[in-house]
Amino acid sequence: MKKFMDNDFILTNNVASKLFHEYAENVPVIDYHCHINPKEIAENKHFKNITEIWLGGDHYKWRFMRSCGVDEKYITGDSSDKEKFFKWAECLSKAIGNPLYHWSHLELQRYFNFYKPLSLKTSEEAWEVCNEILNRSDIGARDIITKSNVTLICTTDDPIDSLEYHRTIKEDNSFDVKVLPAWRPDKAMNIEKPDYKDYIQKLSDVSNIKIQTYKDLLEALKIRMDFFEENGCLVSDHALEYVMYAPAEISEIEDIFISRMNGNAISREEELKFKYAFMQAMAKYYNEKNWVMQLHYGCKRDNNKPAFEKLGPDTGYDCINNYTPSSELADFLNALEEKHILPKTILYSLNPIDNSYIGTILGCFQDSSAISKIQQGSAWWFNDHKPGMQDQLRTLACLGNLSGFVGMLTDSRSFLSYTRHEYFRRILCNMFGELVENGEYPEDYEILGDIVKNISYNNSVNYFGFPVDTI
Amino acid sequence: MKKFMDNDFILTNNVASKLFHEYAENVPVIDYHCHINPKEIAENKHFKNITEIWLGGDHYKWRFMRSCGVDEKYITGDSSDKEKFFKWAECLSKAIGNPLYHWSHLELQRYFNFYKPLSLKTSEEAWEVCNEILNRSDIGARDIITKSNVTLICTTDDPIDSLEYHRTIKEDNSFDVKVLPAWRPDKAMNIEKPDYKDYIQKLSDVSNIKIQTYKDLLEALKIRMDFFEENGCLVSDHALEYVMYAPAEISEIEDIFISRMNGNAISREEELKFKYAFMQAMAKYYNEKNWVMQLHYGCKRDNNKPAFEKLGPDTGYDCINNYTPSSELADFLNALEEKHILPKTILYSLNPIDNSYIGTILGCFQDSSAISKIQQGSAWWFNDHKPGMQDQLRTLACLGNLSGFVGMLTDSRSFLSYTRHEYFRRILCNMFGELVENGEYPEDYEILGDIVKNISYNNSVNYFGFPVDTI
Amino acid sequence: MKKFMDNDFILTNNVASKLFHEYAENVPVIDYHCHINPKEIAENKHFKNITEIWLGGDHYKWRFMRSCGVDEKYITGDSSDKEKFFKWAECLSKAIGNPLYHWSHLELQRYFNFYKPLSLKTSEEAWEVCNEILNRSDIGARDIITKSNVTLICTTDDPIDSLEYHRTIKEDNSFDVKVLPAWRPDKAMNIEKPDYKDYIQKLSDVSNIKIQTYKDLLEALKIRMDFFEENGCLVSDHALEYVMYAPAEISEIEDIFISRMNGNAISREEELKFKYAFMQAMAKYYNEKNWVMQLHYGCKRDNNKPAFEKLGPDTGYDCINNYTPSSELADFLNALEEKHILPKTILYSLNPIDNSYIGTILGCFQDSSAISKIQQGSAWWFNDHKPGMQDQLRTLACLGNLSGFVGMLTDSRSFLSYTRHEYFRRILCNMFGELVENGEYPEDYEILGDIVKNISYNNSVNYFGFPVDTI
Repeated sequence: MKKFMDNDFILTNNVASKLFHEYAENVPVIDYHCHINPKEIAENKHFKNITEIWLGGDHYKWRFMRSCGVDEKYITGDSSDKEKFFKWAECLSKAIGNPLYHWSHLELQRYFNFYKPLSLKTSEEAWEVCNEILNRSDIGARDIITKSNVTLICTTDDPIDSLEYHRTIKEDNSFDVKVLPAWRPDKAMNIEKPDYKDYIQKLSDVSNIKIQTYKDLLEALKIRMDFFEENGCLVSDHALEYVMYAPAEISEIEDIFISRMNGNAISREEELKFKYAFMQAMAKYYNEKNWVMQLHYGCKRDNNKPAFEKLGPDTGYDCINNYTPSSELADFLNALEEKHILPKTILYSLNPIDNSYIGTILGCFQDSSAISKIQQGSAWWFNDHKPGMQDQLRTLACLGNLSGFVGMLTDSRSFLSYTRHEYFRRILCNMFGELVENGEYPEDYEILGDIVKNISYNNSVNYFGFPVDTI
Repeated sequence: MKKFMDNDFILTNNVASKLFHEYAENVPVIDYHCHINPKEIAENKHFKNITEIWLGGDHYKWRFMRSCGVDEKYITGDSSDKEKFFKWAECLSKAIGNPLYHWSHLELQRYFNFYKPLSLKTSEEAWEVCNEILNRSDIGARDIITKSNVTLICTTDDPIDSLEYHRTIKEDNSFDVKVLPAWRPDKAMNIEKPDYKDYIQKLSDVSNIKIQTYKDLLEALKIRMDFFEENGCLVSDHALEYVMYAPAEISEIEDIFISRMNGNAISREEELKFKYAFMQAMAKYYNEKNWVMQLHYGCKRDNNKPAFEKLGPDTGYDCINNYTPSSELADFLNALEEKHILPKTILYSLNPIDNSYIGTILGCFQDSSAISKIQQGSAWWFNDHKPGMQDQLRTLACLGNLSGFVGMLTDSRSFLSYTRHEYFRRILCNMFGELVENGEYPEDYEILGDIVKNISYNNSVNYFGFPVDTI
Repeated sequence: MKKFMDNDFILTNNVASKLFHEYAENVPVIDYHCHINPKEIAENKHFKNITEIWLGGDHYKWRFMRSCGVDEKYITGDSSDKEKFFKWAECLSKAIGNPLYHWSHLELQRYFNFYKPLSLKTSEEAWEVCNEILNRSDIGARDIITKSNVTLICTTDDPIDSLEYHRTIKEDNSFDVKVLPAWRPDKAMNIEKPDYKDYIQKLSDVSNIKIQTYKDLLEALKIRMDFFEENGCLVSDHALEYVMYAPAEISEIEDIFISRMNGNAISREEELKFKYAFMQAMAKYYNEKNWVMQLHYGCKRDNNKPAFEKLGPDTGYDCINNYTPSSELADFLNALEEKHILPKTILYSLNPIDNSYIGTILGCFQDSSAISKIQQGSAWWFNDHKPGMQDQLRTLACLGNLSGFVGMLTDSRSFLSYTRHEYFRRILCNMFGELVENGEYPEDYEILGDIVKNISYNNSVNYFGFPVDTI
C-alpha cells in the first residue's frame, strides 16, 4: 500500500516518479488563466485565518458542504470562522473520490506543512497550525505566489478596467512575478442582459468614444484593447453558452444594436446573430495583435434563482449545458479561416463528452503559424479532477499532438491553488510512466523529459509569447 | 490469477476485501425501487423450475438470446422449459463481459449453491440442482426475500391500484419484511396515449371524483396519494422521455385536458406543456408529503413495432434516447425551487453520457433539509453493470457527495435479483480500496466503514424516512 | 517494465498472451471494409520509397504533422520525399499516446524488420532499411497483402464503377486473395450536391436507363447492383451525416427528384426526405440480395474551406458531428422491420459517446436470421486507437453479444495497415485475459479460444457469407 499522499502521490511506477521528480517538480509555474484579484497582489493581502483564504470565496467547497446537508449559516452565513472551518473539516473527511480532498491536502502539505488527513478530529490542530503561519508577517498573497515558483500570472479583466493594479505591480521592483491582464469582453457581448445599456455607457466613458452604433462599439473596444496591449495583455477569454454560427449582414447587426440601445428587447435569433458577429470581430482583432483567443463554453449559470438573488453569481449554482453543437463550432472557426483571420485559439467545453469532437476539430485548423495553434484547454472546472484530467490528456493524445499542449492553469480565485499545477504534472507523468512501463513508448528520457518540461512550462511561454525565458 | 467468482470476487486488494467482508457483506438490504408483483409475495409464490423464475419475464436475458441468433421459440415461444434453459445456458457461456454473466452466476451461487460456470456442458446438472431446491416447500418468493436479508421493499404501483396485497402482507405476522407501495402516475400524465380517456374513467371510479377538468384530475390523484400514504408510501416514480420545461398558463392546461377528454388529438407542444404542468403539480404534493420524487428518463420504448404487437411492452425492445437537454432539467428543478416546493429528488438518465451534467445539476439544488437532497440514482438498466456502476460512482464522487448516496436498488421483476446489491457493494468497496491502496485516501476504517454502511443501508433509511432502524 | 513493443505488446497477463499467440496471431485476415485502390492490386503496384507508401495519401499522418506546426511544404507540398520522411520521423517521436505511434512501429516491425523507435536520430537508418525492402522486385501491393495473411478484401466502389480491376484480379490465378467490390451509392443519394445531375447522367450511361424520375433512378441502381452482385459484392456502405427518419409520400419524393433534375435547389427538409426514402429503398434491395448494410455516420467533412479548395476531400479536415439522434436511428430501423425488409446492418458512429445508445438499439432488432444481425462496427476512424477500441469492446460486451462480433476492418487507403488487425486482436485478447485473471470469467480455453477465433475471422465469414472457409 502506498502511503497517504506522500512524495510519490499519484505516481504509480518508477518511470513516472523519475519524470516527475527530475523534469516536472522544480519547473516554474505559469498560470495563464485565473480569477485572482490583482488588487490583492498589489497590496500583498494578508489573511486573518485559514477560513478567509480557504472558504471565503470558494464555491467548489460551498457546493460540497451543501451536498452534505450543512446549513447555509456555516457556508456563506454568519457563523464564526472557526465554526465554518470545523464544518468544512467534517465534510472534507468524507469527500472520498472528490478533487477537493486532494486539492485541500496538497495545500495543507505545501503551504502549511500539515500532513495529517483533515477531519473533525484534526480540525483544532489544523486550525492552529494554519493560522499561525498565516499570521506571520511574511505570508501575504505575494509571498504565497513566490513560494509557489510562479513566474507569470494572467488575471481576467473587463475592458473598462483601469488596470491600475497591474501597473502598480509592474512598477514595484520588490516583486518580479509578471502579472498580466487578460481581456474578457463578455459584458460588451451580452446584449440580452438588462444592464447592457449601462455597461455600454461605462465603456463610452472610459474609451472616450460616444457609442451609438455597433461600429462605435467595436471602435471603443479596439481602443481598450490597445490599452490592454500596452499593459502586457496577450490573451483574451470568452464565456459562451455555446460557440454559435449565425451569420448575418452587418446592417442587420447594426439594427439589432441600435434597437437594443433604444431600450427594445431582442429575439433569441437576434441575440445569436449579434454574438456571432461580435465574436468574429473580436477574433479578427486578436489575430492582428497575435493574442490567444480562449473560448469557455457549455455552461448554464445561476440555475437556482432564489440562491442567485441572495448570493449573486459564482456562488456554486452552475451546471453543464449539454447543447454544444460541434457543427457550429467548426463553422465558426472556418468562417475565420476563410478570411485568414483565425487567431491562436484554446477551446474549453464544460461537458467532458465533448472531448472527442473537440480533438477532431482542432486538427482541422492547424498550420505552421504555431505549434498546436488550435488547442484544447486543460480539463475545466467540473472536470478539473484526476479522472477528468486523465480523460482530457488521453483524448488529446489520441486525436492531436499532446506534446504541443500548453498545459495547466488554475482558473482559480484563490492564492493557494498553485498546487493544482503539481497535481496536473503528477497525473501527466504517471500517464507517461504507465505507457513506458507497458512497453507502449520507449524509455527515452531525452524525449520524455523534454515533453514533460514543455507541457509544464515552455509550451505556454512560446505559444502565448510570454516575456519570460524558457527553461 | 484470482479464482472464478470466489469470496473476493471484484475485490482486488486487501482494503477492499476488509471493507466488504467487515462492513458491507452482512448489512441488510433495502430495495427502494423494483417491479416485483406484490401479489406473488402475498401468496408466497412457488416456482415450478429455474426457467420460470429466471427466464419467465426477464427481457435482459431475452435480448441476449436474440443477439445470439436464438429462435424466438426458445425465448418467449412454445418450446419446453428445459429446452429454453439449455438454450440460455449455451448463450450465457459466451456472454463474456456482459452483466448477465455475473448476475446469473451470483444467483446460482447464493440461491442454489451451484458454483460451476453455466454452459451447455453443465446445464443438465444445473437444471437438476436448481429445480430440486425450487421444488422444496420452503422456497417461495418470501423465503427468497428473507434469505436475501431484505428488510424493506418498495414496489411500483399505479394510482388506481387497490394495494390489497400490500395490506395483506402488512397484516400477515409471519412475514416481517416491509413491502411498501410506490406511486407511479405515468398513465395519468401520458395524455397523448390512445387509451388516456379510459384510464381517466378508471381513476374517476376509484377516487369517487368525476374527472371533467384538469383540476378534477389533480383532486382525484390527491385522494389516491392520501390512500397510498395510508398504506405506507414514501416514494414516487416517473418514466419520462426527458425532463421538460414548458411553462404555460393554467387555463391553457385546462383547455388541453378538456380537449383531449373530448376525444381530440393534441399537438406535441400541448403534450409537453401538459406533462410539465402535471409534473410540477405532482412535485408540489410530494414536497407536502415529504415523499421522494424519482425521475427516470432518457428512454425510447417499444422500438420494434412488430415485436411490440406480438409481445407487448417490457419485452426487450427499448433503447436509450439521447435527447435529454440539461437546460430543461435545470429549469424544471428551479421552477420548483422558486416556489419553495422542490421535494427530495432522485435523477436517473438511461444515457450514461449524462452522468457528468447530472452531477453538476445536483449541486445547484442542495440544502440542509436533507443530506444530498438531490441525488443521482444508481446506474440504471442498460448501465447496471460493472463499468456502468464504476462510472456512476466515480462521477458522483468527483462532482458531489458520494458519502450521502442512497445506493443500490434492483429495478427488477425477479425475486433472485437481490444479489445485485452484493455486486454493487463489491464494486463500491473495491473503488474505495483502490483509492486507499494508491495513497489517495487514508486507511481509516472508522470513516470508511461508516461510509460503506451508510451507502449500503443507512442513507436510504434516513433519506426516505423508512420505518426501519439504521444499523 | 515490459520491453518496447515486443512479442507481448499490449498483452499484460499470461491468459492474454496465451489467447493471442495460440488463437489469434496466426488466424488469417478478412478486411471487409477498406479504401484500397483495386487497380493497384491488379497491377501489383510497387512503391519507390517509404514516403510514397506511408505519407502519400495518409491524412492521419498529415493532421498530426500540421498539429506539430510543420509547414505544408513538408506534408503535401513540393519538398523531397526524404525531407518529408525526416519531418515525419521527428513528429512521430513525440506522438506519445497517439495511435500513429503504434501503427507506424507495428508496420516498421512487421514489414521492414525495423525494431528501433523512429525519431530524427534513427530516420536515416529507417529510410535506408525501408527503401531497400520496397525496392526489391518481390515487394509490391500483392506481396504485402499475401505476407499479411489476408484471404479476402472488400474495396469501396461507386455504382458507376466498371469493376474491371476486380475482374482482372479474379481472373489472375497467380493471386488467390479474393478482392470483392462493395457498393457505395453516396453520390446517387446526395441530391443537394452541385454536381448531382452530372452524376445521374453518368449513371444513366452506364446502366442504359434514361433516368428521368426517382423510379428510373432506382431501376438504374438495381441494374448496377445486379452487376456488382455478379462480381461478388456482398456488402454495401453509406456515409451519412446522421441516420434520419423523414417519411414522405412517394409522390413527394418524385417531385423533389424531378425538381432537382430541372436544376432547382432543394430545401433541407426535402433533402432529408429524399435521403430517407433513398436509404429505405436501398435497404430493401440489400435485404433481397442478403447483402450487409453498413451505415457510417456522425461525420462533418471538409471543414476547412481554404484547405479543401487547395487539397480536395479526405486530406485531414473532417470532424465529429455530435448531432446524431438515437430516436431517428431507431425509427429508421423499425420502418424497415415493419416492412420485413431490414437487412443485416452494421452501425458506425464517429462519435464515441454514441457507443451506449448504439448498444441498446442493436438489441431491439435482433432475430434468428443471423447471429448478431444488427452489429456495431469496430471503433471507427478517430476512435481507431487503444482506448477507443477498448471502449467499443467494453460497451458491446455489456450491452450485446460480443462473441458474435464481426470484428476488425482497416478502413484504410494503405497496403501497410493490416497490422491493425493484429493491434485489435492484442487488445481483444488482453481484455479477455484481464477478465479471467480477475476471476470474472472462467479460464476455459475451449470457449475463449473459439470466441477469439470467431471474432478474428469466422464471424465475418459467416455473417457476410464470404466465399472462404472458416478455420
